Amino acid sequence: MLKILILEITPFMFETIITPRVNETDGAGHINNTVVPIWFEAGRLEIFRILTPDLSFASWKAALVNINIDYVKQIYLGKDCLIQTWIDRIGTKSFAVGERVLQQGDICAKGVATYVYYNYNKAESEEIPLSVRNELKKHMTGEENRNLRE
Amino acid sequence: MLKILILEITPFMFETIITPRVNETDGAGHINNTVVPIWFEAGRLEIFRILTPDLSFASWKAALVNINIDYVKQIYLGKDCLIQTWIDRIGTKSFAVGERVLQQGDICAKGVATYVYYNYNKAESEEIPLSVRNELKKHMTGEENRNLRE
Amino acid sequence: MLKILILEITPFMFETIITPRVNETDGAGHINNTVVPIWFEAGRLEIFRILTPDLSFASWKAALVNINIDYVKQIYLGKDCLIQTWIDRIGTKSFAVGERVLQQGDICAKGVATYVYYNYNKAESEEIPLSVRNELKKHMTGEENRNLRE
Amino acid sequence: MLKILILEITPFMFETIITPRVNETDGAGHINNTVVPIWFEAGRLEIFRILTPDLSFASWKAALVNINIDYVKQIYLGKDCLIQTWIDRIGTKSFAVGERVLQQGDICAKGVATYVYYNYNKAESEEIPLSVRNELKKHMTGEENRNLRE
Repeated sequence: MLKILILEITPFMFETIITPRVNETDGAGHINNTVVPIWFEAGRLEIFRILTPDLSFASWKAALVNINIDYVKQIYLGKDCLIQTWIDRIGTKSFAVGERVLQQGDICAKGVATYVYYNYNKAESEEIPLSVRNELKKHMTGEENRNLRE
Repeated sequence: MLKILILEITPFMFETIITPRVNETDGAGHINNTVVPIWFEAGRLEIFRILTPDLSFASWKAALVNINIDYVKQIYLGKDCLIQTWIDRIGTKSFAVGERVLQQGDICAKGVATYVYYNYNKAESEEIPLSVRNELKKHMTGEENRNLRE
Repeated sequence: MLKILILEITPFMFETIITPRVNETDGAGHINNTVVPIWFEAGRLEIFRILTPDLSFASWKAALVNINIDYVKQIYLGKDCLIQTWIDRIGTKSFAVGERVLQQGDICAKGVATYVYYNYNKAESEEIPLSVRNELKKHMTGEENRNLRE
Repeated sequence: MLKILILEITPFMFETIITPRVNETDGAGHINNTVVPIWFEAGRLEIFRILTPDLSFASWKAALVNINIDYVKQIYLGKDCLIQTWIDRIGTKSFAVGERVLQQGDICAKGVATYVYYNYNKAESEEIPLSVRNELKKHMTGEENRNLRE
């Protein structure tokens, strides 16, 4: 109940519904661990769109430098999952994405993905432009959502 | 226009919305060919549920024997796709699933997947039970949708 | 025995060893069906190299138009698989790749993938250049391997 | 030179050769980030075999609790990769796997995966048996390989 309330007051989050696929299960009977990074990347689509509005790979700006994922609970076929994605931190040239996957209300995995704002043509990182920074900020956790960081 | 009309009178189809993922693209810039069989399998989820209502792998009944896919048009990141899935043919021990993927109204790939009704514990095919057969029939193309078979 | 002999007299084939991965299994306990198209594409790497020697996506020449795969036998984790890949047919603008996967000597799946020789910049198919055609021919089944086509 | 020397005196490592696949690239032209966790899991196959000698999912013992991966350098199609996998730490009920992927001698990504020794039937973690612990220890970094941990 409280959980639902919290979700309602967090419009900064991107939420993506994912229906688990048979090929994403493994022999142990649940969703394979390597699928979570794939779902988390899928959940970042609107963040990629902030960086590269037409999603054109020729002007792609995000380069991943680290992922750190805690696996908390098994995920099963048959029930939709909810991916929640937000901005955890913005630096001069890099930013961190907070993310988690829930199934039937339970947090099953949570993580942080760190990106640099990267110019693939020059092969070097660049300062995040102000317009992009302002857009990213809209999806940032504030003090009231500090619990998401734990 | 006609197309939209046809879709509206075909409730026998299962329709699944798929948002293409960055990891599903390949270096050629569009969705990799090997992703289409994955999306098609995802589109068969409700058919698997007819065969195995609780989707439990311990009582899984579907064994794939053939897939045949025509690739018609490139699929791109950035726009949702629609997977349409229906029953094309029902035999004594086997059935064929018709399927296609559309992006922005265009058919991008279409195929047929042939399954046998299979008892994994006995390691042999079995006759499709009448109750399953009746349920599958509800999703079968009739004469009016014969065009789907071409 | 006879099988081993045939393999030894078929140097036209490309052979690729694949170690099945845990994430490639599914809840039914064996390698998921959608993995076979992925392995088959992996087995075509040297064919792609004939078409695009530096494997650069900017000058990629192969566009897939059809795959047709028969699933014959389950594939399991724990034993390496052998992918065999050859040219089945060469037309003016298209060619067909024959392929199969064996595990412990048993054919587990076999298929044909049909490609057109495609200019992605002009967005149209082109005649296969003579040099490419000659190279592809070296990997074609002859009369003595006609059994591969069945 | 020094690097080659170090590799030669580290027989504790599992080394797995991986040929990058076309479907593992993404629109940005290199191997997609989500593929690295898949390759790292593939590199742990012999560790899974220590825990579950017949690799039977019915008696699977490893449950992943965390992955932490640094992405250092792009990985490209066309050249084989080397996955190096070793034991970084062994606790009472858990252990950590160190791992990295090299292409043409360069470290492209490195990470740590933390597992608990888990009884899926009882749904609880268990102490790592002495025989398993002794086997894992053979693949552990010693003082002389402390540099791997950085």
